[in-house]
Amino acid sequence: MTGSNMGVDNKFPGKDLTEDDIQNKIPLVAKRSPDHRTTFECGGVEFGGKLVPVMAGPNTVENEELIVKTAIGIKKAGAHFLRGGAFKPLTFPYRSAKFFETREKGLEWLQVAKKETGLPVVTEVMEISKIDLVAKNCDMLQIGTRNMQNYPLLTEVGKTGMPVMLKRGFGNSLRDWLMAAEYIALEHDRLNQPTKIVLCERGVVAPHTHRATSRFLLDLQVIPAAQEITHLPIMSDPSHATFWQPWVKSMMLASIAAGADGLMLEVHPDPKNAAVDPLQCSSLEQFDDIMKACRPVAEAIGRTVDA
Amino acid sequence: MTGSNMGVDNKFPGKDLTEDDIQNKIPLVAKRSPDHRTTFECGGVEFGGKLVPVMAGPNTVENEELIVKTAIGIKKAGAHFLRGGAFKPLTFPYRSAKFFETREKGLEWLQVAKKETGLPVVTEVMEISKIDLVAKNCDMLQIGTRNMQNYPLLTEVGKTGMPVMLKRGFGNSLRDWLMAAEYIALEHDRLNQPTKIVLCERGVVAPHTHRATSRFLLDLQVIPAAQEITHLPIMSDPSHATFWQPWVKSMMLASIAAGADGLMLEVHPDPKNAAVDPLQCSSLEQFDDIMKACRPVAEAIGRTVDA
Amino acid sequence: MTGSNMGVDNKFPGKDLTEDDIQNKIPLVAKRSPDHRTTFECGGVEFGGKLVPVMAGPNTVENEELIVKTAIGIKKAGAHFLRGGAFKPLTFPYRSAKFFETREKGLEWLQVAKKETGLPVVTEVMEISKIDLVAKNCDMLQIGTRNMQNYPLLTEVGKTGMPVMLKRGFGNSLRDWLMAAEYIALEHDRLNQPTKIVLCERGVVAPHTHRATSRFLLDLQVIPAAQEITHLPIMSDPSHATFWQPWVKSMMLASIAAGADGLMLEVHPDPKNAAVDPLQCSSLEQFDDIMKACRPVAEAIGRTVDA
Amino acid sequence: MTGSNMGVDNKFPGKDLTEDDIQNKIPLVAKRSPDHRTTFECGGVEFGGKLVPVMAGPNTVENEELIVKTAIGIKKAGAHFLRGGAFKPLTFPYRSAKFFETREKGLEWLQVAKKETGLPVVTEVMEISKIDLVAKNCDMLQIGTRNMQNYPLLTEVGKTGMPVMLKRGFGNSLRDWLMAAEYIALEHDRLNQPTKIVLCERGVVAPHTHRATSRFLLDLQVIPAAQEITHLPIMSDPSHATFWQPWVKSMMLASIAAGADGLMLEVHPDPKNAAVDPLQCSSLEQFDDIMKACRPVAEAIGRTVDA
Repeated sequence: MTGSNMGVDNKFPGKDLTEDDIQNKIPLVAKRSPDHRTTFECGGVEFGGKLVPVMAGPNTVENEELIVKTAIGIKKAGAHFLRGGAFKPLTFPYRSAKFFETREKGLEWLQVAKKETGLPVVTEVMEISKIDLVAKNCDMLQIGTRNMQNYPLLTEVGKTGMPVMLKRGFGNSLRDWLMAAEYIALEHDRLNQPTKIVLCERGVVAPHTHRATSRFLLDLQVIPAAQEITHLPIMSDPSHATFWQPWVKSMMLASIAAGADGLMLEVHPDPKNAAVDPLQCSSLEQFDDIMKACRPVAEAIGRTVDA
Repeated sequence: MTGSNMGVDNKFPGKDLTEDDIQNKIPLVAKRSPDHRTTFECGGVEFGGKLVPVMAGPNTVENEELIVKTAIGIKKAGAHFLRGGAFKPLTFPYRSAKFFETREKGLEWLQVAKKETGLPVVTEVMEISKIDLVAKNCDMLQIGTRNMQNYPLLTEVGKTGMPVMLKRGFGNSLRDWLMAAEYIALEHDRLNQPTKIVLCERGVVAPHTHRATSRFLLDLQVIPAAQEITHLPIMSDPSHATFWQPWVKSMMLASIAAGADGLMLEVHPDPKNAAVDPLQCSSLEQFDDIMKACRPVAEAIGRTVDA
Repeated sequence: MTGSNMGVDNKFPGKDLTEDDIQNKIPLVAKRSPDHRTTFECGGVEFGGKLVPVMAGPNTVENEELIVKTAIGIKKAGAHFLRGGAFKPLTFPYRSAKFFETREKGLEWLQVAKKETGLPVVTEVMEISKIDLVAKNCDMLQIGTRNMQNYPLLTEVGKTGMPVMLKRGFGNSLRDWLMAAEYIALEHDRLNQPTKIVLCERGVVAPHTHRATSRFLLDLQVIPAAQEITHLPIMSDPSHATFWQPWVKSMMLASIAAGADGLMLEVHPDPKNAAVDPLQCSSLEQFDDIMKACRPVAEAIGRTVDA
Repeated sequence: MTGSNMGVDNKFPGKDLTEDDIQNKIPLVAKRSPDHRTTFECGGVEFGGKLVPVMAGPNTVENEELIVKTAIGIKKAGAHFLRGGAFKPLTFPYRSAKFFETREKGLEWLQVAKKETGLPVVTEVMEISKIDLVAKNCDMLQIGTRNMQNYPLLTEVGKTGMPVMLKRGFGNSLRDWLMAAEYIALEHDRLNQPTKIVLCERGVVAPHTHRATSRFLLDLQVIPAAQEITHLPIMSDPSHATFWQPWVKSMMLASIAAGADGLMLEVHPDPKNAAVDPLQCSSLEQFDDIMKACRPVAEAIGRTVDA
């Protein structure tokens, strides 16, 4: 009979998490009870608690003046973390007059901004040989969407014992994502320290994204889905997901209401002249307006965006 | 040169709305100014205004007792509209002991529940020959996801002049959706009456939906995307989208925060014994809890769920 | 424990066909043995056998001269069926100088072309009230992608007992598709006649389709997937799927090699001036070249495109 | 007016390749004329020519006996390349009794199999620190789907000057893919050598994949789409895409007919006991049968699978 080999056989890898997956493949990131939630502190900011930390800053640390100006502005509006890319190649290998990675310089400028404002720093690390350098110059290491399944990188980043933000790969399932987190959690466990990982949804590929320039769809359904299985906090990054600034505010509010444990967005003092992603980044004024809108929504669900 | 015929040619149908589409293919549903918004009244409830109307009820009008009990319960918890399917075939052509369409009887029972509670009724119409019958027994006609591009049905439903809820096809783009709405709007226009259409997002097909039983992903990004282009109100239906009751509450709150102009969800007094969709429907107690959570979120963004 | 309600529960509707689905929801279209295959004759052409019938013609029956010229040209090149739309609304409700439905006239012209060439005709029927009219003027009734789950239409079309081509909805799963076919098969069964349905893959929505003007991805994986479960023949329509003529030929050949039981494509004597879909339709010369390429590929797998 | 900022603005990154992308972001991999095609030789096998090279072997080089037995079997059936993973972590960080990476040992065993049969070897490299080691033990370096946008790895692999197979990321567009290839091509160009890259489609994420165990959809439409823009040869890997052996044969044939410049599939002498992917790998007998079916299809389109 044709159907005899159809249907679901849980012994083999599938599309969704099975009970076996949860128990044997992600034992460290899976919840051990319905109320199990990880909280950890990083740069004086609590993740996984009542606070919904907001991380803001430019795509790229273009120069010192820019990053310091941004840090002062976002701090004033209420952000808890400064974000910015120093190691940040484009999807193609050519630089332009406007865009180039600032690398070591960029890391230095992030530290200048931190000293100026007190804001802790999160920045991306893309290769094993740069982990030490990046780790010395930030409070939280970010794994970018394109490296979510770069397992050697995950393992080496885990070995530092530092807090890690693991962005979701834009083509990856929740199953893939939690299993990637387990790579980091395993190293934290080997160091006999609690797991310090925060997940970050940033948009996924989808048939319809509503604008020619939008490549991704923000998946807010993954927030309750992840919280059902894992004790790790989960953030949302609406600016990369929407790729269109006019939609960022409503998706920030929706992320909070959906239960996001943190928010990330791109902010630039002069969006039109941003080296990268001018369509999606918010000005300092727009960011201030967004933060003002976030406060009552967070309060409405018993959370807060005020440190 | 190979590339000479690549790239985007706006003269031909594409994936996203072009300026030409907006001006020539959806003139009636497109905004004429940034603040242009349609409001209309149906069954004593305002759509497109400050209120976020909530429509609740079972998938199927199984029997009179069920629908009356549900109506009383949801009214008490604060719902504004009673929903329920009388004409509602399954995806396959066989009935079961538990499931069968109640058709004319179902429509009658909806009217009994309306008389009992005063709640207006929205129900689906699936074929032209039943429009008169259904129209006489409800306040708003619903076009289901599978019929979003059934143009003869849209035209005939438009000719009644009644308010219409147009659910998004689960494989359809915003472009498809607004063009389908234009079919109805054209008939309303021919009747020299204002357009009375409310759009309803209900989940779309996507690569990852997070559970074996979840087939759809709630697309909240479509809410600001639609509001950028159209003056029509847009609702959200998180229960069909998530197909999993434990995720409904957070997606309801996220829908409000995203700017949804209305909400729809499945409520059943005894979910375990629901004839259809037991995994996604909320009990009356769960619905009451959801409504209590919705109020402060709506207020936080200057809306209300209280009539 | 969190995981206790995770995983797959086959009692509830899911994304893929279960053994229960196959036995209880699609008993008539499911194979009863591994070699079970339906063959039927329509207009003198055998479906489901060694022949791979080719259906060609314009999107729209624009005028008599066009359709007769096309029929003569495709017949000469080796096509087995003439296709063309008489009832064929656009995705928006406005006509243009170039495009309008020719309806009754279009059906007449298809019959003129049939008389001229002997080619049988397949054309779409979109509403119940037109079934008799369309049925009298064609050899095979086509259900279009947007009506795949228009169940009342499927039932009424099934009652005619005529051969039916059921196009796959562009957002629909194989599970949805076979269950829709079961609606028609049930009516054929009630007439005590063998099932005369041919499925037709025509592209699905997907995250990446490779051109701004391409909205769909041809899913050839569905051919072996369908043939594993159903005895119905399954065709492929590469021109709607690719929406780009330069890709049609290779996708025609790939369809044959994948095991398609038939092919459909758009052919127009003057593609640049086609009323609809100028980007995807092949000229008569291009069609002749495609047919010449199809023959050896069909032979290579033990099939034929020559009647 | 609302629409004024809608539509496509080619200055910003979009979903599809624009003329500007082709000229400025992928100058080395873009075709310079319609007939421009790269051919290169690797391990005595020509890529990009009339031959359609076939690469076969197990997912993982489990042990010496297995890989030698496989190599002898596939060579006899007509394969041109031996594939097998030595560095090959799972999607989660735990090993099992059955599965573990064989790393250096695995590379040695691949060389034993090469000596025994003369078959050149392709194997994956996952981290920069292992490039030298892997490069010494293979003829072609493979970049896996999860590392397609690991730009530091692409650059360092490019610097070796060795032939590279670049698998498509399962969530990546053609645009992403060609831009990733440009990273490698730039290094080949800096070495003043011709580009030696072969692309490999291996299935993408999609809303419907037809089986609970299938996570990907083979995208054959990308073959003509890629060949329209790039001079690089493009292969197809149907076994990872379908994840179901019974569908592999028809997808192999379809790949050839679609114009694939090479094929890759998993072959294991004892599929049921394969350490990984038992559902998708073909036995030596099944591989022999597939190769016999491939020959006439390749000939039908003027290609060959015989060296």
